[in-house]
Amino acid sequence: MSDQKYSTIHYHNYLEIDKLLSIQNTRSAALGDAAHDETLFIIMHQVYELWFKQIMTELDSVCILFREEQVNEDNMNTVLLRLKRISTIVSLMVEQIHVMETLTPLDFLDFRDYLFPASGFQSMQFRMIESTLGLREEDRMTYHGKSYKIVFNEEQKARLEGIESGGSLFELVERWLERTPFLRFEGFDFLSSYKEAVDRMLHKEQASISGSEYLDERMKAMRLKMLGDSNSYFKHVLSKEEHERMMAEGECRLSYEATIAALLINLYRDKPILNIPFNLLTELMNIDELLTTWRYRHAQMVMRMIGNKIGTGGSSGHDYLAATAEKHKIFKDLHNISSLLIPRSELPDLPEGVERNLGFYFSGKK
Amino acid sequence: MSDQKYSTIHYHNYLEIDKLLSIQNTRSAALGDAAHDETLFIIMHQVYELWFKQIMTELDSVCILFREEQVNEDNMNTVLLRLKRISTIVSLMVEQIHVMETLTPLDFLDFRDYLFPASGFQSMQFRMIESTLGLREEDRMTYHGKSYKIVFNEEQKARLEGIESGGSLFELVERWLERTPFLRFEGFDFLSSYKEAVDRMLHKEQASISGSEYLDERMKAMRLKMLGDSNSYFKHVLSKEEHERMMAEGECRLSYEATIAALLINLYRDKPILNIPFNLLTELMNIDELLTTWRYRHAQMVMRMIGNKIGTGGSSGHDYLAATAEKHKIFKDLHNISSLLIPRSELPDLPEGVERNLGFYFSGKK
Amino acid sequence: MSDQKYSTIHYHNYLEIDKLLSIQNTRSAALGDAAHDETLFIIMHQVYELWFKQIMTELDSVCILFREEQVNEDNMNTVLLRLKRISTIVSLMVEQIHVMETLTPLDFLDFRDYLFPASGFQSMQFRMIESTLGLREEDRMTYHGKSYKIVFNEEQKARLEGIESGGSLFELVERWLERTPFLRFEGFDFLSSYKEAVDRMLHKEQASISGSEYLDERMKAMRLKMLGDSNSYFKHVLSKEEHERMMAEGECRLSYEATIAALLINLYRDKPILNIPFNLLTELMNIDELLTTWRYRHAQMVMRMIGNKIGTGGSSGHDYLAATAEKHKIFKDLHNISSLLIPRSELPDLPEGVERNLGFYFSGKK
Amino acid sequence: MSDQKYSTIHYHNYLEIDKLLSIQNTRSAALGDAAHDETLFIIMHQVYELWFKQIMTELDSVCILFREEQVNEDNMNTVLLRLKRISTIVSLMVEQIHVMETLTPLDFLDFRDYLFPASGFQSMQFRMIESTLGLREEDRMTYHGKSYKIVFNEEQKARLEGIESGGSLFELVERWLERTPFLRFEGFDFLSSYKEAVDRMLHKEQASISGSEYLDERMKAMRLKMLGDSNSYFKHVLSKEEHERMMAEGECRLSYEATIAALLINLYRDKPILNIPFNLLTELMNIDELLTTWRYRHAQMVMRMIGNKIGTGGSSGHDYLAATAEKHKIFKDLHNISSLLIPRSELPDLPEGVERNLGFYFSGKK
Repeated sequence: MSDQKYSTIHYHNYLEIDKLLSIQNTRSAALGDAAHDETLFIIMHQVYELWFKQIMTELDSVCILFREEQVNEDNMNTVLLRLKRISTIVSLMVEQIHVMETLTPLDFLDFRDYLFPASGFQSMQFRMIESTLGLREEDRMTYHGKSYKIVFNEEQKARLEGIESGGSLFELVERWLERTPFLRFEGFDFLSSYKEAVDRMLHKEQASISGSEYLDERMKAMRLKMLGDSNSYFKHVLSKEEHERMMAEGECRLSYEATIAALLINLYRDKPILNIPFNLLTELMNIDELLTTWRYRHAQMVMRMIGNKIGTGGSSGHDYLAATAEKHKIFKDLHNISSLLIPRSELPDLPEGVERNLGFYFSGKK
Repeated sequence: MSDQKYSTIHYHNYLEIDKLLSIQNTRSAALGDAAHDETLFIIMHQVYELWFKQIMTELDSVCILFREEQVNEDNMNTVLLRLKRISTIVSLMVEQIHVMETLTPLDFLDFRDYLFPASGFQSMQFRMIESTLGLREEDRMTYHGKSYKIVFNEEQKARLEGIESGGSLFELVERWLERTPFLRFEGFDFLSSYKEAVDRMLHKEQASISGSEYLDERMKAMRLKMLGDSNSYFKHVLSKEEHERMMAEGECRLSYEATIAALLINLYRDKPILNIPFNLLTELMNIDELLTTWRYRHAQMVMRMIGNKIGTGGSSGHDYLAATAEKHKIFKDLHNISSLLIPRSELPDLPEGVERNLGFYFSGKK
Repeated sequence: MSDQKYSTIHYHNYLEIDKLLSIQNTRSAALGDAAHDETLFIIMHQVYELWFKQIMTELDSVCILFREEQVNEDNMNTVLLRLKRISTIVSLMVEQIHVMETLTPLDFLDFRDYLFPASGFQSMQFRMIESTLGLREEDRMTYHGKSYKIVFNEEQKARLEGIESGGSLFELVERWLERTPFLRFEGFDFLSSYKEAVDRMLHKEQASISGSEYLDERMKAMRLKMLGDSNSYFKHVLSKEEHERMMAEGECRLSYEATIAALLINLYRDKPILNIPFNLLTELMNIDELLTTWRYRHAQMVMRMIGNKIGTGGSSGHDYLAATAEKHKIFKDLHNISSLLIPRSELPDLPEGVERNLGFYFSGKK
Repeated sequence: MSDQKYSTIHYHNYLEIDKLLSIQNTRSAALGDAAHDETLFIIMHQVYELWFKQIMTELDSVCILFREEQVNEDNMNTVLLRLKRISTIVSLMVEQIHVMETLTPLDFLDFRDYLFPASGFQSMQFRMIESTLGLREEDRMTYHGKSYKIVFNEEQKARLEGIESGGSLFELVERWLERTPFLRFEGFDFLSSYKEAVDRMLHKEQASISGSEYLDERMKAMRLKMLGDSNSYFKHVLSKEEHERMMAEGECRLSYEATIAALLINLYRDKPILNIPFNLLTELMNIDELLTTWRYRHAQMVMRMIGNKIGTGGSSGHDYLAATAEKHKIFKDLHNISSLLIPRSELPDLPEGVERNLGFYFSGKK
């Protein structure tokens, strides 16, 4: 019956509109006086949960494409497009807070009492998103000193543990970066070459600043201080031991090899084989930043709704959310690559063989 | 059992998450090869339907507050806040098209064939929104020469007819405007006073332009043409007969009395009793404009998705939608009030008695 | 020469396009190798400065309208519309950060060195906006332990001091709130009436929770804790002494009388005379929140651009900005009013005389 | 004096703030009564002109990179990032219309008379953007039956003519597409292979529809009509003669070879060498669509501001702008590629040699 695909379907049935519109049952109407704004409250959260489902759909597919030993190059742009879709959705989620803010504090009081102890902390899907991206249990804010999983049932807990132990996007990207073949390639040693460039640049700048007739002593001191500050950042990346100390102390998370690879991608992003990897790392930072913004705006909205009062879930609403905004950021180490960049003009030319290998077969074979 | 409100509830149950997340069943998976992007397609439409439900919730409540013979002044700001909520939601709906646009034409082809003949034309709730706002059957684009209702079942048709015959927001606002007591009040005749001001202004300007040493003949002619053009607009409002001819010929819809009242509200919007009415008329225009933008962006998105091909519903996709953008605008007459405004400096002062009546009791009684 | 207004003007001259487009002179081109992206960097900041000028234009006009002993009621909606314009502009400023983010860290390095020690800290207009809104010197982050004014010249310092001592919008709004006549009016004492309602509500709830068959002991304890928490907030407002202690210790800033008035406006916002005041307080919170978001997004963008490196102005870029986000919030006390609200159903009816005085003359005199 | 780059600079001087803030000189203040909102009007337009300059900066640089005989592959991602920057800016320009809409029609009347005959039609930079993208004189709306250039002086006209005759982005992209080597390559003839796939697909579908037990006669007819409609679109691309007839009659503009290349890029977008070209064509459509939206929203705003009155420039304001929205779209032919796509599952596999040539040297040489 291969042509069953020609069976017809109505918009109404396809989208299961009857079921969809039957699940906005307000507690205020069921248990007391119907509060006009409770429908909005339910719908806003249901819309968020639908977007969460979509984000999980994309994340799961991206993880599968990344999980292969050798990521298929024909899939890389698909990965990029799906990550961009996630960004676009999270952008929309940020905008949606404006709808939430049309619910005034006074109107919220008309049904707030019925919601106890329900709370956004209990959104399973949002936790899954964070964990799939790479947030670890130990990176999370605790909940009254206990695990964030305490509000979930056994089956849900097991599901979250499965995700936490199963290879997050962070780990997949880390391994993919570590596999970059161009760190040491055909006689080219990226790290040495970069170190030399950094040293050369720092020395040149130091001499120029010290000898400059355009800077008075205070300004010279300030510039040299900035230079020294940059220098200390460079040192971290120049030393594997220092990097591993930082990892051990939780100051960074991305492995040394992956960090160097991300640096290489950022510096040589114009080479064809690094175009999509560069855009892909950028998109991971976009998602991270947008989720951070969403948490921050969420915290602002809660402050507006209940002031400093305790939330329906029993937490200190605003403060908890505000604290998670930065703390739950996942790809911080990618943001920090900026500290390690040097101007393109300071970079040495690549050997011809390396250059060819960063281009297309069609161009290179000639 | 008055304290049943203290029964506890979990986020998961409150929002009926299980049901909500069980209704994204892709046809591609059921009837052929699962297409990754079909989930997005379903979720995007379900989110729209949730927002439509919320808009209907607000519209219904606003209509009830407006339906009273004498609208309760204590409800006016509530009406305004609910209309603003609708604007905020439609703004978000416009932004959501960016998510839709992450679905590329090629990926859409992976499941497009399964959707026949489902189509957005079959969204009952969107038609309800348009009709509740005031779109009449005769104002609508026809569907292959037939009524837009043809895609609905009998029960749905009946529901739409009920709305169409039951007093739309347009009609309620029209009647509310017609009841404005200040058109003729304590010896003040707004229309005469306005006519005089318009005449005075036009004559003064005509003389100034004609005698100006700053304008050459071509510029004088151009300015006088513009003045004449304005003049002809003023004439419409100065003559009830002309207005009724225009109504009969479908050039405008809002009654003469309501038009004059809307003009008065716009000109004297700074008077306390007219503050909220002015903001409320502005908000109706916002909603109208945002819905127009949504239809327009929707048409653009369809063009991108299927080019000039016929849509799954059998219509000429893009062209139909683009045509409805302006045609389905409802409060055009409010937008046109701008043509009738004259600078505040040209307006005569209000008699003291009228002035007091446009203010607060607290201020006026002294 | 009264008709000089008829002299003609070309778009190009009206907007002084030649001058406007002649002031994007890149340092990289002047002092070294032209960096493509420096033009963007200049234009982005110039656009911000233009918006700052517009915001100052609106703020100054609003302050003038508020400065009168008895604010003219005919100006209140104008104030509201101008505050909304500020919100709209700050919203756009937040969106503009997306343009800034198209400047990649690597491209920024091509001209960053030329900018020393220029920095956004040196924007005079932004400081003026903050001070005019009501940010005091003592509320600000210090700049390397010194006054933020250190980067300005003497004339600029004097101007900022003038603003700081001249009556900010915060102070004008505070005085306007304090003048609200309805706190004690025709035998109605708002504060006593509110206190009684709060007590009644708290007792009723406490009894209900304790006796509820729907709550187990842990849940009862949690709810009672939340109730107690609310209670402690109410206490602050119930005691002028406590409020003054909090003011002295910097925990709040808005005077006791003004706080009570803001509470009254929020609770009785549906009364006509309080409609615009309520919308106006909401708009002040919007502006505050949007500026906070702008600072926060700005901090995120800086993190992305330079990682943890020191900014061109010598500050710790990201951390400084992130810290100002909340710290420079001005109308926190208005956000906190939410903590003091009680459901409308708990409010006592207003005496008829009071009710009439909160309405329109036209309605009340009948 | 190589270290002149260390000369210091203040934010205030770098951005030429004094000049920037000195050019908002209102005509209302100079010639009559100062109108509060005129400053906003000037600033809004100046901000637009600054963005126009930035867009021109990007367009000029992109055209230079594209103008080389063989576009340097190391520049392709830079081109993409600059086109995305343009999209981001135009998105912001669309949002800015909300600021424009805070200027109410009544307030506009306070200074509208002073602006004659200035008009947005006189923005030189906006015309340059349209022409550089590829809008030809003959594609433009005429201005009272005359060339749009009539409002410019001789030097400006010459500049616009230079752009119009100098190779627009449309033409550069067209030539770049025409050079695609993969249309006929190592024994693979894309067009024949595509034609066969289309025929195979159409026949299979026709048979399935005709024989389907799931469709009644009306539905069969409808589906076959849709199929026939698709078929007629395919025919255009299958025949060079037909395409050239369409070009001659102005129904399309992009050359036959370029159209086929764009089709190939869309169908095989997952191959590494086509990743950036695909994203780049998408970005051109984004820019086109966003500019269309901007014109459309602009038209809406004008309708709101002056209703149906004639604009200060003497044109029929809203109608002119609304008509340009679609008419001035430049890359319509790229949007129409969607009509020609077929599902990936219908595409034949590429010969191994071709496949390798669409990949990276590093992967292919093994």
